[in-house]
Amino acid sequence: MTQATIRAAVLGASGYAGAETIRILQRHPHVEITALTAERHAGKPLGAVFPHFAALDLPDLVKIEDVDWSTVDLVFCGLPHATTQEVIKDLPAHLRILDLSADFRLKDIETYAQWYGHDHLAPELQKEAAYGLTEIYRQEIGNARIVAVPGCYPTASQLALIPGVKHGLIDADDIIIDAKCGVTGAGRAPKEGSLFAEAAEGIHAYGVAKHRHAPEIEQGLSAAAGRPVVVNFTPHLMPMNRGILATCYVRLEGGASAEDLHKALDTFYADETFVRVLPYGEVPATRHVRGSNNCWIGVVADRMAKRAIVISVIDNLVKGTSGQAIQNLNVMYGFAEDTALEKVAMFP
Amino acid sequence: MTQATIRAAVLGASGYAGAETIRILQRHPHVEITALTAERHAGKPLGAVFPHFAALDLPDLVKIEDVDWSTVDLVFCGLPHATTQEVIKDLPAHLRILDLSADFRLKDIETYAQWYGHDHLAPELQKEAAYGLTEIYRQEIGNARIVAVPGCYPTASQLALIPGVKHGLIDADDIIIDAKCGVTGAGRAPKEGSLFAEAAEGIHAYGVAKHRHAPEIEQGLSAAAGRPVVVNFTPHLMPMNRGILATCYVRLEGGASAEDLHKALDTFYADETFVRVLPYGEVPATRHVRGSNNCWIGVVADRMAKRAIVISVIDNLVKGTSGQAIQNLNVMYGFAEDTALEKVAMFP
Amino acid sequence: MTQATIRAAVLGASGYAGAETIRILQRHPHVEITALTAERHAGKPLGAVFPHFAALDLPDLVKIEDVDWSTVDLVFCGLPHATTQEVIKDLPAHLRILDLSADFRLKDIETYAQWYGHDHLAPELQKEAAYGLTEIYRQEIGNARIVAVPGCYPTASQLALIPGVKHGLIDADDIIIDAKCGVTGAGRAPKEGSLFAEAAEGIHAYGVAKHRHAPEIEQGLSAAAGRPVVVNFTPHLMPMNRGILATCYVRLEGGASAEDLHKALDTFYADETFVRVLPYGEVPATRHVRGSNNCWIGVVADRMAKRAIVISVIDNLVKGTSGQAIQNLNVMYGFAEDTALEKVAMFP
Amino acid sequence: MTQATIRAAVLGASGYAGAETIRILQRHPHVEITALTAERHAGKPLGAVFPHFAALDLPDLVKIEDVDWSTVDLVFCGLPHATTQEVIKDLPAHLRILDLSADFRLKDIETYAQWYGHDHLAPELQKEAAYGLTEIYRQEIGNARIVAVPGCYPTASQLALIPGVKHGLIDADDIIIDAKCGVTGAGRAPKEGSLFAEAAEGIHAYGVAKHRHAPEIEQGLSAAAGRPVVVNFTPHLMPMNRGILATCYVRLEGGASAEDLHKALDTFYADETFVRVLPYGEVPATRHVRGSNNCWIGVVADRMAKRAIVISVIDNLVKGTSGQAIQNLNVMYGFAEDTALEKVAMFP
Repeated sequence: MTQATIRAAVLGASGYAGAETIRILQRHPHVEITALTAERHAGKPLGAVFPHFAALDLPDLVKIEDVDWSTVDLVFCGLPHATTQEVIKDLPAHLRILDLSADFRLKDIETYAQWYGHDHLAPELQKEAAYGLTEIYRQEIGNARIVAVPGCYPTASQLALIPGVKHGLIDADDIIIDAKCGVTGAGRAPKEGSLFAEAAEGIHAYGVAKHRHAPEIEQGLSAAAGRPVVVNFTPHLMPMNRGILATCYVRLEGGASAEDLHKALDTFYADETFVRVLPYGEVPATRHVRGSNNCWIGVVADRMAKRAIVISVIDNLVKGTSGQAIQNLNVMYGFAEDTALEKVAMFP
Repeated sequence: MTQATIRAAVLGASGYAGAETIRILQRHPHVEITALTAERHAGKPLGAVFPHFAALDLPDLVKIEDVDWSTVDLVFCGLPHATTQEVIKDLPAHLRILDLSADFRLKDIETYAQWYGHDHLAPELQKEAAYGLTEIYRQEIGNARIVAVPGCYPTASQLALIPGVKHGLIDADDIIIDAKCGVTGAGRAPKEGSLFAEAAEGIHAYGVAKHRHAPEIEQGLSAAAGRPVVVNFTPHLMPMNRGILATCYVRLEGGASAEDLHKALDTFYADETFVRVLPYGEVPATRHVRGSNNCWIGVVADRMAKRAIVISVIDNLVKGTSGQAIQNLNVMYGFAEDTALEKVAMFP
Repeated sequence: MTQATIRAAVLGASGYAGAETIRILQRHPHVEITALTAERHAGKPLGAVFPHFAALDLPDLVKIEDVDWSTVDLVFCGLPHATTQEVIKDLPAHLRILDLSADFRLKDIETYAQWYGHDHLAPELQKEAAYGLTEIYRQEIGNARIVAVPGCYPTASQLALIPGVKHGLIDADDIIIDAKCGVTGAGRAPKEGSLFAEAAEGIHAYGVAKHRHAPEIEQGLSAAAGRPVVVNFTPHLMPMNRGILATCYVRLEGGASAEDLHKALDTFYADETFVRVLPYGEVPATRHVRGSNNCWIGVVADRMAKRAIVISVIDNLVKGTSGQAIQNLNVMYGFAEDTALEKVAMFP
Repeated sequence: MTQATIRAAVLGASGYAGAETIRILQRHPHVEITALTAERHAGKPLGAVFPHFAALDLPDLVKIEDVDWSTVDLVFCGLPHATTQEVIKDLPAHLRILDLSADFRLKDIETYAQWYGHDHLAPELQKEAAYGLTEIYRQEIGNARIVAVPGCYPTASQLALIPGVKHGLIDADDIIIDAKCGVTGAGRAPKEGSLFAEAAEGIHAYGVAKHRHAPEIEQGLSAAAGRPVVVNFTPHLMPMNRGILATCYVRLEGGASAEDLHKALDTFYADETFVRVLPYGEVPATRHVRGSNNCWIGVVADRMAKRAIVISVIDNLVKGTSGQAIQNLNVMYGFAEDTALEKVAMFP
């Protein structure tokens, strides 16, 4: 791969995932943004929907149908599900695609149909899509034309759990993931539940036992376990903008101790740029990764015998969405994996 | 008991628990506040430490040693642990006591010594202290001279779990309590971790596997189970002032379903004023009980077989501290149990 | 006036003003809520739109056309402007009305037309409407059939400024009101600008030099000055739920000092239950009135010669909306003015 | 100037200003951090006081007396006032200094003594200190050995006002600055007023008519006006981490209109990298500059005749402190002025 400039389009530039992608891309030395789309805002400058970009020199927003694909090498797709499948299957074949939606994450199109309520609209493309959890599927990602960027919760959960499951240190049939996410996870669509007055100064669980990230997490853990597993995944809405914290309660297997689990995680991620396993017994805070592409993981022994607690944190908009997409871009084009990505949080 | 006026003293009036106690007491028709203490602020009016009380006609702050106990019938004690035991054991015997600290909550003084790092200083008084979880120990509370008001986390956790454990619907050896609390839970002492800039826009777990509320929860669940149990209790700090949400992950026992568990809870609390079990499958939010003395509980079936999720919410300063203390006062003196207490949240 | 029970309807019960009205009314000993309306939610229980009311025994939501007015004495009207005029002009004449909208606040219907973009739809009713700033217009309110409850900003601003203007201590032609309000001021309609992710962790001014509360403030100050005045009014959106703080910059007139202004305010409000003038030189915080019907006012001398700073705070949903409405209800029916209203803030 | 590596020390690395300086410096291609000091934390790694830095390879914290100055070219001084003067006057003469404290900002040592309560301890050094408001004093800064980095409020205020005063478009004797700042402005010292529970969900003014940034602002505006001026400066504490918004109320002079003032500002800053004047009539939000070194300024005509409103926003920790310091570093050493500094906000 040469260090030539990659020409990128961002579809769905008026949402938070689109904005975060642009924020990171604009400092990538090898990427030029050549198209931005937003159906309802076509014709406006990006600064009209996101004033903080007003001073940048970027293309105006257009409709997808008006993009000149000959000026594009790579597409970031931040569209709603279902729409995504329809749009992507009609894109020219020379384009590589980083899809931020859920549309190509589930390998099994029947599981997709069951959780999303309609048949998959691009089953052929599904077969060639790599799952973009960089630390786990780096090889496939490098060679893929289409990469399905994982969900925010599945990123935090799988990075915390896959090594232990893979090494047989964790009972894959007794995993509880109590996850907490900031309000940006709900997107920019004006919904009553996302209003400041509804989300501030209070917390609640939502989508209990039926959140669509559950099958995605189970897909990854099943692959690690080598057999189908079902887990508890319970998300909660937090009064903050950014951040996911996944508190994972696990039963240790095969005589392993919590220290053994810690050591396995530490070894597994020893060469990674963005994943850091804290010293045994320490736990991470979301604010310590805010704005960065980091995932920090802590392991503590439970007071209950043969159990441990694994806690992981990420910024849901960075490692949980746009940052991981750009990490994948770096892998796909052979750039240094941390190009344009922060490794130090903006704190406070 | 007559409806005569009870003369109350609040020890430790410069902390949040003291303030919340005063806020509620000042609208209690049968209570008069006759003494307020705050060691470092003795001599000042209460408005000097809590400006929002400046317009009230209340006694000035004094040192504990300067209280004229002949003007007092009932003491709210909001002092640090250990200090509390020393102060209470020297109080005149005519006083009834509602202790907001942890000092008289643990029946077993060895467990106390183990978790608090020093011998219990008033073991004789410990024997006569009732545990003030009103819905569970109403009878003992009514007759007690000393009532140990439960901790905020133990209140939310035990109300959610005791009925199921008591009726054998929950496996008491496989309980995970993932709890989340607002920053007022940390008190008013200026600590770096409680600063706005440290606590806002981020979350973290703390005291993992070693928080002092764990033995208190276990004491209550052991009593319900009829044998000693150990549970997982993992607290998290939330960027909000008030509220606790306890997400309890339980294994169902004896062939019970999640609906059975829901029904048992609903029946158990059917006559309670402040505890409400939501319709099956619904979950509560802390903002729906903020400022009230309510505890709301929801039950949902887990996707994992034979498991359920029980979620309870309270306002940590009201049902979790001062409100429950005054609920106990009402029981002790034969007032209507909801006197001076809110049943409707202040939302938004 | 007897202490008989007043039967109240709340129109627009699914908004924040409606909810706050219900929250306060449900503890009013002389009011019974007999009808609740919400057009889009007709047929549902109130708990379906505001879960925190789910445990109360209240009438279900209906459409306005389905209210049985024979069961109603008093109407709280929390509808959008224009709609309000149309609805109110068709109500039976036996009803007394507390209007929470802007529709009857401006005495001059041409000013109304200019700022609201359409002709006044009930000019006859406008003539009989009293302006419900209780401390200033108590007499008219007591006798009125229709009371226009003032806007939140105009309440905080006028209470701070009217005494000084009326007594000629302030130059009415050089008044700057820098006002700050929490997000509930924007209502519950899902708008992008009210989303948590847009409103948290940041501030901005809005409606600069064109906010519709400006003519309302000018109407009150003109009346006090005895001549038309124009003022600066600049509102800002704050990342909090409740509270208004109005920082008023004034030029002292006629040789008055800041102390003179303070003394005049203090005297003016000496007998008021809810308005408190702080000791000279002290300034109030919104959190010290949160949840209460209080307005607290502070006066400080400016470093610039012959100028002073007057700062007032209220809870925008209470004294700024529903609390003041119920204060007016108490005046209209001869109840103690503080019936059902808090005088102590919920802090923290 | 060559592009050689500058070796920097950060004194007071355990405060927010120190942390923000390190955060920005660690991505500066021409700066190496060779020493970090924190008196109470000497001997610890930086990650012990700021966990988000734990993964970086940085020198451990030491006491100032233990720094080997031969390894240092440039000192960032983030110490308390008075201490700063004592420390700086004893530093070796080869060091260049960027002082983040207030100690060298006021040219007149008598004004310093009056506002800070003690005589200036390094009056000789005061004479050679440049005032580091980059856009205004770039020339002096480039040649200075000691640069006093302006306060956060003075930065936002002066950038908004100096062009208008300098060009005679604003009456320098009738300026009101209503300023609002996030809680990080109060620093990391554990103070009751900075606690989450005290600062969240509420606002208040503080230091009214006596804040120490007033004389600093007046110094700058007096220089622009060519005569001594006194202004109103009223700061308010906001429930957010980062951001300053200064709402400046000005009287137009010499027949100038608000458009004229806008045009003058626009022209004045036309070539600046970080200062942006918005289109006439638009106003900025702090969230649109968060994390960046930008200052955005808006101008609106007042409804009051011959008056205008100028609103400026900055991130108080970046352009208001550490970012401006590093902007000055870039000027002092001839690097591109935006090296290591962000021009796009982190939003949301």
